[in-house]
Amino acid sequence: MTDSPRRAPVTRAGATPAGRRRLRRALAAAAVDLFVAKGYEATTVDEIAAAAGVGRRTFFRYFEAKDDVLFANHDEIVAEMEETFAAAGPDRDPVEMACAAVSLVLDSYAAELDVSLKRFTLTRTVPSLRDKEVATVDRYQRVLARYLRARFAEQGDETASLRADVAAAAIAAANNHVLRRWLRSGGQDDITASAAEAFALVIDAFRPGGASEGPETTVVAVMTTATPLHAVIAKVNAALAEK
Amino acid sequence: MTDSPRRAPVTRAGATPAGRRRLRRALAAAAVDLFVAKGYEATTVDEIAAAAGVGRRTFFRYFEAKDDVLFANHDEIVAEMEETFAAAGPDRDPVEMACAAVSLVLDSYAAELDVSLKRFTLTRTVPSLRDKEVATVDRYQRVLARYLRARFAEQGDETASLRADVAAAAIAAANNHVLRRWLRSGGQDDITASAAEAFALVIDAFRPGGASEGPETTVVAVMTTATPLHAVIAKVNAALAEK
Repeated sequence: MTDSPRRAPVTRAGATPAGRRRLRRALAAAAVDLFVAKGYEATTVDEIAAAAGVGRRTFFRYFEAKDDVLFANHDEIVAEMEETFAAAGPDRDPVEMACAAVSLVLDSYAAELDVSLKRFTLTRTVPSLRDKEVATVDRYQRVLARYLRARFAEQGDETASLRADVAAAAIAAANNHVLRRWLRSGGQDDITASAAEAFALVIDAFRPGGASEGPETTVVAVMTTATPLHAVIAKVNAALAEK
Repeated sequence: MTDSPRRAPVTRAGATPAGRRRLRRALAAAAVDLFVAKGYEATTVDEIAAAAGVGRRTFFRYFEAKDDVLFANHDEIVAEMEETFAAAGPDRDPVEMACAAVSLVLDSYAAELDVSLKRFTLTRTVPSLRDKEVATVDRYQRVLARYLRARFAEQGDETASLRADVAAAAIAAANNHVLRRWLRSGGQDDITASAAEAFALVIDAFRPGGASEGPETTVVAVMTTATPLHAVIAKVNAALAEK
């Protein structure tokens, strides 16, 4: 072994990043099961640690408090979002990019259906866990807003900061709407289809320069050139008013 | 006195709704001063109660916990929002109505500049208070979403629930943006002007049927009727593409 003797001691399960990730997930799964079985308040950190096969001190190496364990992979997802933004080309529409980044949250929920469903029950029934979840979403939202603010400012938008805050909130809300719908269906709902619908609504709403630039506003005016000009204009106006 | 002898005992300051409101505010103001002066964690409920001239038991008649005191008039504002919605005519645009209701939050902050500024410092520096604030905003947002969902559904919108969640989040974010900007300016910023700008952005984004129905998308096509039809169409298309 050529390791420096001053290297920090490594715990068995936490030796590698993958091992640490596994242990975090094991602690989260054990916690969720205990919270559902005996109640959130009645469950102790010692019980969670024991159920995951580790000690109390190991638990606190991974989480600051009992209520953090429910959103175990929050930091991971935030880091992946930042990587997605860093890797994005400058030509991608900022709102589309932010939707792509936030869908990492959907992926992470979909990858662990059982834990996700139990957590959903808990956040609906335990107010402090509900508050914790809301705070977690707020952190994602701030990551989105920071990215959008920079991109909108590059595009010369004088209201970049306002627009970024509003769009980030809309994107997070669309994401949560899809997530809740999917969880209520017990994971049966087509999450990809509802995500596409929800993100399309947001992308449309925050299209740069307003929706008037999109292809949706192309007006097809049917007219014959024999009609006098004022009548053509009247017909065009009537068609526009009818839309 | 003709009061029933079974009537619950009344505390001196809490006899009337107005008196209760005054005492809530006094407790909140005392708490904010103590939190700023000696730190949130170090301040006890006993100290807050004493500073407002009441006992510990009175404090707990008004607030469930120490961290509730910072958002003392939350319930009042939510009730006023509900009244605003109940009184609104069916012809008012739902998103405009929701913006009008959420601006009650701005009014309440503006009415108590000193407390608002101190609370702003606290929520930026104490993570648990920041989380509490986020949870408070989430509750306003759910009130807005419920109203919008009902109104959008009345309008026959099949995506009423999604649209309501997204619009409510956008409105709350616009409101918070204005509030933070005003607080950062020490209450000097023109809160009415920035609120008008922020709400206009949201109303525009969530205009029913997309911005294509608004007057902004009226296309003025200048053409002579002697021009052949295909050339007219080509000119119209070119004009639309240029917009």
